[in-house]
Amino acid sequence: MGSDTPETVADIVAAHRAGTMTPAQTVARSYQRIRDHNDPAVFISLRDENDALAEAEALTSKDAAAVPLFGVPVAVKDNIDALGLATTAACPAFAYSPAQDSTAVAKLRAAGAIIIGKTNLDQFATGLVGARSPYGIPVNPIRADLVPGGSSSGSAVAVSAGLVPLALGTDTAGSGRVPAMLNNIVGLKPSLGLISNAGLVPACRTLDCISVFSLTVDDAMTALAAMAGPDSADPYSRDRPLGPMSAFPETLRLGVPRNDQLIFFGDHASERAYGEAIERWAQLGATLVEFDLEPFYETARLLYEGPWVAERYLVIRDLLASSPDSIHPVTREITAAGARLTAADTFASLYRLQALRRTAERTFANFDAMALPTAPTAYSTAQVLADPIKLNSRLGTYTNFVNLLDLCGLALPASMRPDGIPFGITLLAPAGRDAQLASIGRVFHADTKLKLGAKGLTQPPLATLPAAVSGDEITIAVVGAHLSGMALNGELQALGGRLLEATATASDYKLYALDTVPPKPGMLRVDAGTGSSIKLELWALSATAFGKFVAAIPPPLGIGTIRLIDGRGVKGFLVEPIAVNGARDISTFGGWRAFMAEKAAV
Amino acid sequence: MGSDTPETVADIVAAHRAGTMTPAQTVARSYQRIRDHNDPAVFISLRDENDALAEAEALTSKDAAAVPLFGVPVAVKDNIDALGLATTAACPAFAYSPAQDSTAVAKLRAAGAIIIGKTNLDQFATGLVGARSPYGIPVNPIRADLVPGGSSSGSAVAVSAGLVPLALGTDTAGSGRVPAMLNNIVGLKPSLGLISNAGLVPACRTLDCISVFSLTVDDAMTALAAMAGPDSADPYSRDRPLGPMSAFPETLRLGVPRNDQLIFFGDHASERAYGEAIERWAQLGATLVEFDLEPFYETARLLYEGPWVAERYLVIRDLLASSPDSIHPVTREITAAGARLTAADTFASLYRLQALRRTAERTFANFDAMALPTAPTAYSTAQVLADPIKLNSRLGTYTNFVNLLDLCGLALPASMRPDGIPFGITLLAPAGRDAQLASIGRVFHADTKLKLGAKGLTQPPLATLPAAVSGDEITIAVVGAHLSGMALNGELQALGGRLLEATATASDYKLYALDTVPPKPGMLRVDAGTGSSIKLELWALSATAFGKFVAAIPPPLGIGTIRLIDGRGVKGFLVEPIAVNGARDISTFGGWRAFMAEKAAV
Repeated sequence: MGSDTPETVADIVAAHRAGTMTPAQTVARSYQRIRDHNDPAVFISLRDENDALAEAEALTSKDAAAVPLFGVPVAVKDNIDALGLATTAACPAFAYSPAQDSTAVAKLRAAGAIIIGKTNLDQFATGLVGARSPYGIPVNPIRADLVPGGSSSGSAVAVSAGLVPLALGTDTAGSGRVPAMLNNIVGLKPSLGLISNAGLVPACRTLDCISVFSLTVDDAMTALAAMAGPDSADPYSRDRPLGPMSAFPETLRLGVPRNDQLIFFGDHASERAYGEAIERWAQLGATLVEFDLEPFYETARLLYEGPWVAERYLVIRDLLASSPDSIHPVTREITAAGARLTAADTFASLYRLQALRRTAERTFANFDAMALPTAPTAYSTAQVLADPIKLNSRLGTYTNFVNLLDLCGLALPASMRPDGIPFGITLLAPAGRDAQLASIGRVFHADTKLKLGAKGLTQPPLATLPAAVSGDEITIAVVGAHLSGMALNGELQALGGRLLEATATASDYKLYALDTVPPKPGMLRVDAGTGSSIKLELWALSATAFGKFVAAIPPPLGIGTIRLIDGRGVKGFLVEPIAVNGARDISTFGGWRAFMAEKAAV
Repeated sequence: MGSDTPETVADIVAAHRAGTMTPAQTVARSYQRIRDHNDPAVFISLRDENDALAEAEALTSKDAAAVPLFGVPVAVKDNIDALGLATTAACPAFAYSPAQDSTAVAKLRAAGAIIIGKTNLDQFATGLVGARSPYGIPVNPIRADLVPGGSSSGSAVAVSAGLVPLALGTDTAGSGRVPAMLNNIVGLKPSLGLISNAGLVPACRTLDCISVFSLTVDDAMTALAAMAGPDSADPYSRDRPLGPMSAFPETLRLGVPRNDQLIFFGDHASERAYGEAIERWAQLGATLVEFDLEPFYETARLLYEGPWVAERYLVIRDLLASSPDSIHPVTREITAAGARLTAADTFASLYRLQALRRTAERTFANFDAMALPTAPTAYSTAQVLADPIKLNSRLGTYTNFVNLLDLCGLALPASMRPDGIPFGITLLAPAGRDAQLASIGRVFHADTKLKLGAKGLTQPPLATLPAAVSGDEITIAVVGAHLSGMALNGELQALGGRLLEATATASDYKLYALDTVPPKPGMLRVDAGTGSSIKLELWALSATAFGKFVAAIPPPLGIGTIRLIDGRGVKGFLVEPIAVNGARDISTFGGWRAFMAEKAAV
């Protein structure tokens, strides 16, 4: 596949919208690549090609601009229901024909995506290796001797190998992140409850989430935005707004573990790669903040030594009783242990987890996100088959604790090691900060200049983010001391404000220099055509921040509606007319910055 | 005790501040009453009187205005640590000497309260009857044949009998509410995590909370405000602002169960009393909204048939193994069952609970609070001793589900039945609405004109609430269509706005009638002394609501700072001067309401 053809979700959607390629052509290309790739272990079931092509052709009648995944072929992990295809969870004896799409798949289809097939996984999503499935072990397309990673093995391989630009995985303890690293792609593990789990075969119902694999962070966020939202069909779904990505922040504090706490199991190449990744963050302007990783390790131990395996046991209890041989022996061994745990054990672990959550909250108060290795090392399939439980467990060193602590995560390619093994880092933050992780993660990934996936695809230039405000945000026009770099701009920053754009008012305003400390202007609307166009900046604030900001504005300034040069009306600073009596009319400067510059020069 | 002496927390604090009674006199009075009352089953341990008196005397050096519980004697349930007194949880073999106060007790002391002693309880807070303690059964001071209710038996009796005006209980499944009803007092069960549980012997750690008994709702809220707040020593504590009480709302929707779902176990007097209580709510202006109680009953069954008893088992596991005979036989029977439950049972119940929580959320979306019987009936001690588990369980009919669903509750006296048995109702709402429940509950309780507690004390008149805004709230002055009863007032109500007061501007403003739909005025500040004083209303909005409100204001109106007649400056509506060109100056009307009335009359 060449980089002159559209390969990312963004490029494919753009090509479909521009008409340079049709959804049907893209879908056909996916099927052709699947045939050419010729690894029967990637997909458990493929949708009938004609069926998919018909759906792609029908798409052209839709409003292309309204569907963010217009004609994008998607692979779905085979523990997520997609109507028309069996759900197996990689266990033929467990298979069933779903009566409807999972909510996530239904939302993808509504967004214009074309479901192509169901991908292989570690049976019942139990595993991080991709080697625990009766449907075979997908070949790692980066280095064939390596495990593909799991449990979302097929989905990760399908994206890395260019078979589809987008795939759904799931993530309970790292299944959406470890395979991302091992396949040199992006793995986005959303905040719990952000994507509905309705129609998902549970692993641990209290910890599961559907995750996204893609070549770029932007593609993953497009898919996440299409799937996010509360769902009455899933009691664990939550109503938390996703919010938009924003520019790389002026100040970024990144948590890195104390050096003596990092574990690589003797893999010096991984250790070096992690050091280089952290150095890249510093070069990008991040302040590195050391923290104590031990409570996070303790949480990870709680997952596999604690009661949560009883959740896995609940899923296959009947099958374990009726047909134990139908279950993969490693999965059976792990899961059967869940039957022996007690309620008292469970509550004792829940208590300890609650304390660890509080510790994690205090830790995260010191920085914006933490940056960890996605996995400490990589293993060959031969190694894993020889020691299936221990090596699997090691791969979860930096992922196991994440869902227990209700964090969101973003696994990013970080480098290609000299031995050809991909190394990745994962950004983690408290639930709800998905967009913030993506905002910094996309810049990091772009900075690596790594090829995307396994096919040597050059990264497209990072897209300019739209300046639109999100649902909860309010735009405010500032014309004076709150402009970037001016005396009071820090107030906006302290409230989490986000610069959207610099623009100007309609020609209906007069600007006056007020006699205040610090110096401020006052802007007044006058009869249409008798005023000037005044330069200003638009900032986005959350409703709460906006409320606090307005409440703190001293007289004679207030907030009214300002007409912009392009006709938009936005909230912004106005002055009470009584205060401009005798004040200097500085409208001819066209803005406060020009006036202050002249004043400084005098 | 006569009603001419201060008996409520509010009256006692006022007397101490006024100097008409000293804290030491009040404390000595408590000890004297305890001796006179002469029921050895109320307190498990009493603090040395001289010690308490010395602390009360030392209080006088403090700033009386700064301590809201200045010299108030308080009894503490004996599963809550108070330094200097053993904590027994009503099990001598379990007793220990705490190394420090529980957080709740420490905060009470810091607020000026004097701890008097530790009260009896159903052992390990397991029970709703007060008959499961080796320290005896406190006599119910309302009707001696009735159980006192439990598990917080001693605390409720101590308040009802006037031994102390305030006592701490705990509440896992109704222990802070059932005894309140049976003793004709107020029982406030806060939102989980609002009061720290650090220093509390757990019953079910995931469901426990410390509760308040008092004669009036206002007293309970004073105590709650003193104790509320996050605490790093309790991982289950939460940072949720309590907020102030507010006036009885213009519109109040109260949920009442479908009539065929109410259970009174054949107690027709209770059934009638409940009907009368609901009728009282209707008379107070509440709209009654029927709802389906079955999901709440199902939640209650989950509590006692489900895994949570394993939490109780965890607390006394060691004692059950080493010294089973030291445990009350009923408590032992109930708790030992917790050992047999599995982790799989636990997660299955947690899943079901999560679904029931979502159902409860949808139910509460239809009304502000629900009003239920506190308990379906009352039992004599003889009845309970003859059938200790079944009758206890019946008393929890309307309380058991509350903490599982993360609701806050307020148990209120509703009436005295013809047979001399007190009947009570409990208001319930989703966590965080404690102050809203109190705001309506205080009015209901006052309306009953019931005597307080067991001593025939007449209710003092309901105090006027302070108009102060709470930490997160912002005051906004409205002068036109947003005034109470005017066209746009609903916008403030929809945003959760709270009317604070009606007042007027300084004499610096002009009011104009704008040509808008609906009609609105525009207010403009003019030179000092050349304008009029304009009538307005102050409303409180949360910062978020304020932000949204301001963002939605169309031009030519905006929000600036308005000077009030008493000199305060508040945010409020101003108009852009360009919009009043040619508009009618209606300043002489002194306000929008007067202008509109005249307009309507014309």
